[in-house]
Amino acid sequence: MSDDVKINRGLKGIYFERSGVSHIDGAAGELLYRGYTIHDLAEQSTFEEVCYLLIHGDLPDAAQLADFDARMKAARQLPDAIHDVIHATKDGHPMDVLRTCVSALATLEPGSTEKGEDGFLRNGIRLTSQVPMIIAAHEAIRNGRAPVPADPELSHAANWLWMLKGERPSANAARLADVDFILHAEHGANASSFAARVTVGTEATLHGAMVTALSTLAGPAHGGAAEDVMKMVREIGTPENAAAYVKEKRAGREAVTGFGHRVYRAEDPRARHMRDGVRKLGEEMGAPEWYEILQAVVEAMKPYARHGLNVNVDFYSGVIYQLHGIPMDLYVPIFAIGRMPGWLVQCLEQQRQNILIRPLTLYNGPEKRPYIPMAQR
Amino acid sequence: MSDDVKINRGLKGIYFERSGVSHIDGAAGELLYRGYTIHDLAEQSTFEEVCYLLIHGDLPDAAQLADFDARMKAARQLPDAIHDVIHATKDGHPMDVLRTCVSALATLEPGSTEKGEDGFLRNGIRLTSQVPMIIAAHEAIRNGRAPVPADPELSHAANWLWMLKGERPSANAARLADVDFILHAEHGANASSFAARVTVGTEATLHGAMVTALSTLAGPAHGGAAEDVMKMVREIGTPENAAAYVKEKRAGREAVTGFGHRVYRAEDPRARHMRDGVRKLGEEMGAPEWYEILQAVVEAMKPYARHGLNVNVDFYSGVIYQLHGIPMDLYVPIFAIGRMPGWLVQCLEQQRQNILIRPLTLYNGPEKRPYIPMAQR
Repeated sequence: MSDDVKINRGLKGIYFERSGVSHIDGAAGELLYRGYTIHDLAEQSTFEEVCYLLIHGDLPDAAQLADFDARMKAARQLPDAIHDVIHATKDGHPMDVLRTCVSALATLEPGSTEKGEDGFLRNGIRLTSQVPMIIAAHEAIRNGRAPVPADPELSHAANWLWMLKGERPSANAARLADVDFILHAEHGANASSFAARVTVGTEATLHGAMVTALSTLAGPAHGGAAEDVMKMVREIGTPENAAAYVKEKRAGREAVTGFGHRVYRAEDPRARHMRDGVRKLGEEMGAPEWYEILQAVVEAMKPYARHGLNVNVDFYSGVIYQLHGIPMDLYVPIFAIGRMPGWLVQCLEQQRQNILIRPLTLYNGPEKRPYIPMAQR
Repeated sequence: MSDDVKINRGLKGIYFERSGVSHIDGAAGELLYRGYTIHDLAEQSTFEEVCYLLIHGDLPDAAQLADFDARMKAARQLPDAIHDVIHATKDGHPMDVLRTCVSALATLEPGSTEKGEDGFLRNGIRLTSQVPMIIAAHEAIRNGRAPVPADPELSHAANWLWMLKGERPSANAARLADVDFILHAEHGANASSFAARVTVGTEATLHGAMVTALSTLAGPAHGGAAEDVMKMVREIGTPENAAAYVKEKRAGREAVTGFGHRVYRAEDPRARHMRDGVRKLGEEMGAPEWYEILQAVVEAMKPYARHGLNVNVDFYSGVIYQLHGIPMDLYVPIFAIGRMPGWLVQCLEQQRQNILIRPLTLYNGPEKRPYIPMAQR
């Protein structure tokens, strides 16, 4: 019960493992996936290609990508019993329904308990394709509609919008969803990926680890920023109100949502791609005011920004979903669609050189004391 | 990408928080819950009293215990839709079914998203009562029987055996299950409790944290020891074979299951209570041979034990379940029944002084490299 022990609250600054997946330079505002900058990937790549890159370590050639794409498309299937689970839970939050269904798939899919490189990979690719299907099926079922079947002609991102809305997305909308997924695909030892690694550390299954990741992403301090920003934008209402809103928040020493990040000191490098997307999509849809409100908030924040304007990626994503008419409670599930390959590849990394992740707590409770029988209390 | 950084693999020896719940002295082989030794609690207390102690910090008086007991009994109810979820998933591993049902309860129970002290406590007590009901209902349903309704006259442990087997347990059997739950109730920053705290760190719900805990406990390196020991005992078959079994394992440098623990260097202090229980229950049931095999393994291990005989708690628990005729795939779920209050109280502790738990990984992937368009690959 000694007290000369260092307590690393939040494990801030503690390295628990090496990882070759993504590199975050918080001071420079740089993010690399397997050595490629997030800017190159957002501008030139596709989500399928980024999945391949994250999993295999290098960009695919045309044949490798075609093969990988075929595997992902072949996995666009859900066992019938999942629809029973969705019906039983349909009034819940979509994140709780998604987590329940991924957990249930462990009981329904052949080979769900297989471990090692092949087992994790097979289950991970299958789940990456199934997660958007579950979210779209739940959205249909809770609105009294039949789920829209997946379309094997469409990309992962375009198929997601198709299943969700029952209509073909514009090329611009599909590309923006693709970029959104690329930007959210992987981000180091964030809380959900770390928690998933703790689960893999006990030699649990990939489904188990994914369930842990979903539980952890669901917390507002991790996956909830896009929803919070959208609430703020609605509260502000018009660009002219932004300055007064920010002034009042800062006077009350309250945080303005969508700014700052545990790791980045410069602007989150993912933000600019979403910013361009919001602007373009807003213009295309004849609703430029959302973008204008966001930019007015950024302007109003300038006097308070000590380390530059640290807008994070989810400052912009909520407005994109809003423009698509997507309900706010689907924002975190959309984050999960994008993060699937990152979770998978970190679980793969963990199980290759596995170790139980078990830190310590320092006891600060009562000293040893004698048990008093009930009659004497 | 500097390399002069310390990597704390498995977070071994790293303190991430203070905790007033349990104290483990691995060198002395001592375990305290809120200052009371595990021996006093195993010998004199009940699971309900230990739940109260862990949650509230002190032993209850008679009125406090009666009130707490009434709360736990009132929570012995499952929403009808949970039976639909069990039917949809019934062919899965009971741990996967349990995790799926706890996840589904987040969508079915009023107030499941409530946070703070009161919300966590209400949801945690309810789930503590529901977890054994789910396991027993699944066991009934997968065997084509109707679930046995809970009996409000019985204690938590006796009611569990009643729901599982449909017959009243002997006083000795009920007491042994009670002691088993007491011994498993709490154990510091073990992987499942730690993972649950990571989930709470993102401001997630208690149901989410419990789902994470269940995912993590399911791994063989955490909750699977009792099952592994039982497989070993069956393989050995008779006490006379134990010495040869151990010799062969050690010659092949393989571990003998049920020995050793990440934290204890002396004997796990929980083991002796299960040892006494196995012996008594075996005699009562006319099946003393299981105990004899275990003790023969302990004898055979003596030449290999450098730090004393580090038998852990789950060396004995599997045989107890075997004597009750409980299938092996329920051993980890039974661990979960006992651990519920430990998970709850650590989640309560975490959310009182909450912080995002987000360590770092050191990047060892490729240096920054230019993106090559597909046509040039």
